[in-house]
Amino acid sequence: MKLGRVRGSVVATVRDPAMEGMKLLVVQPLDASQAPVGACVVAADAVYQSGPGDLVYFVASREAAEAMHPRFVPVDHAIVGIVDAVDGSP
Amino acid sequence: MKLGRVRGSVVATVRDPAMEGMKLLVVQPLDASQAPVGACVVAADAVYQSGPGDLVYFVASREAAEAMHPRFVPVDHAIVGIVDAVDGSP
Amino acid sequence: MKLGRVRGSVVATVRDPAMEGMKLLVVQPLDASQAPVGACVVAADAVYQSGPGDLVYFVASREAAEAMHPRFVPVDHAIVGIVDAVDGSP
Amino acid sequence: MKLGRVRGSVVATVRDPAMEGMKLLVVQPLDASQAPVGACVVAADAVYQSGPGDLVYFVASREAAEAMHPRFVPVDHAIVGIVDAVDGSP
Amino acid sequence: MKLGRVRGSVVATVRDPAMEGMKLLVVQPLDASQAPVGACVVAADAVYQSGPGDLVYFVASREAAEAMHPRFVPVDHAIVGIVDAVDGSP
Repeated sequence: MKLGRVRGSVVATVRDPAMEGMKLLVVQPLDASQAPVGACVVAADAVYQSGPGDLVYFVASREAAEAMHPRFVPVDHAIVGIVDAVDGSP
Repeated sequence: MKLGRVRGSVVATVRDPAMEGMKLLVVQPLDASQAPVGACVVAADAVYQSGPGDLVYFVASREAAEAMHPRFVPVDHAIVGIVDAVDGSP
Repeated sequence: MKLGRVRGSVVATVRDPAMEGMKLLVVQPLDASQAPVGACVVAADAVYQSGPGDLVYFVASREAAEAMHPRFVPVDHAIVGIVDAVDGSP
Repeated sequence: MKLGRVRGSVVATVRDPAMEGMKLLVVQPLDASQAPVGACVVAADAVYQSGPGDLVYFVASREAAEAMHPRFVPVDHAIVGIVDAVDGSP
Repeated sequence: MKLGRVRGSVVATVRDPAMEGMKLLVVQPLDASQAPVGACVVAADAVYQSGPGDLVYFVASREAAEAMHPRFVPVDHAIVGIVDAVDGSP
């Protein structure tokens, strides 16, 4: 999983039928010091309560579809947790 | 998923039989501010109405094949939505 | 697999139900000379005894879920070994 | 899929039994303007007629094995089409 | 698949039970001219005769596990061939 910050949401009328009703968020990946790194991704919200500004962690590839219900969806990034804190040496 | 802009299409007479009739588009990945980032990919069109100039989001790896019908195809990038707008802080 | 150093842990109250009780660690990937390379990832601990400071190797993508019990979890990075030594020419 | 140019072939006597008789080609990935980008990959030839100099597109990860017959092979890159032309704005 | 040079081996007492007895090697990925590119990976040896100094090609992600016996292992990189020669234009 990777750490990320929710930056906004995507509005899309034309989409794959399997993705109807799914909330899609723009997420900026972060490094361990929570600085932005790499390009943003569009992730499905698998915890159903993420929103702009939240610090989250997300999965990629096959495991992202695994997080959704039903799981046979063409999704390759999904938010699976909202982070309260990151402990440890920087 | 990632944001991208359709740039053109690929013409290929010799191709895997499982890909007959499939529309293949050249897509430039974009960052959150819609600036180009990274190399173009060749993506199958799973919404059947994408064309040059469209702002889209696409899936990669196993989930791309999941988006196609039939799904047992050697496809690793597929367009699964056409974007109307991206909301939120830049 | 990749070599990495455990840097800390992630505290997350809101998470996917399939991840309840799972220990999540922040891991810094390393190159062959054990210098940091690339961004940190959040990995599940599949050997159940990793902690901050440990030199480990971890798997990514589908094989990370394979390492967990039960294996139907939305996990894409998992620590599968603690390294005693790396032999060979640098 | 990605665009690439076939650069040569790989000779390997010692190989996984599942790969016996499989033609392996060295492919240079290209960007939309057909300039080289990133490192070469070793790809299996799933259209059975690719050769040095050909402009091709290839799949990666699980979908590469999907393109081979039989499909239970440890292959993660496969050429699935030979490109006649790329249309559209550069 | 990618070309690589075996650089050494990994000693790990604490490891996932599914990986008992598996030889793990440190591999430096190479480009077409056999110059090092990117970070080293830890790969399982699926041809059972690779050693330091060998020029090899290896698979990543799900196909790496496919190369191992048994195949339900948390492995995401595996050496599947030892290269005798790379033919073609540089």
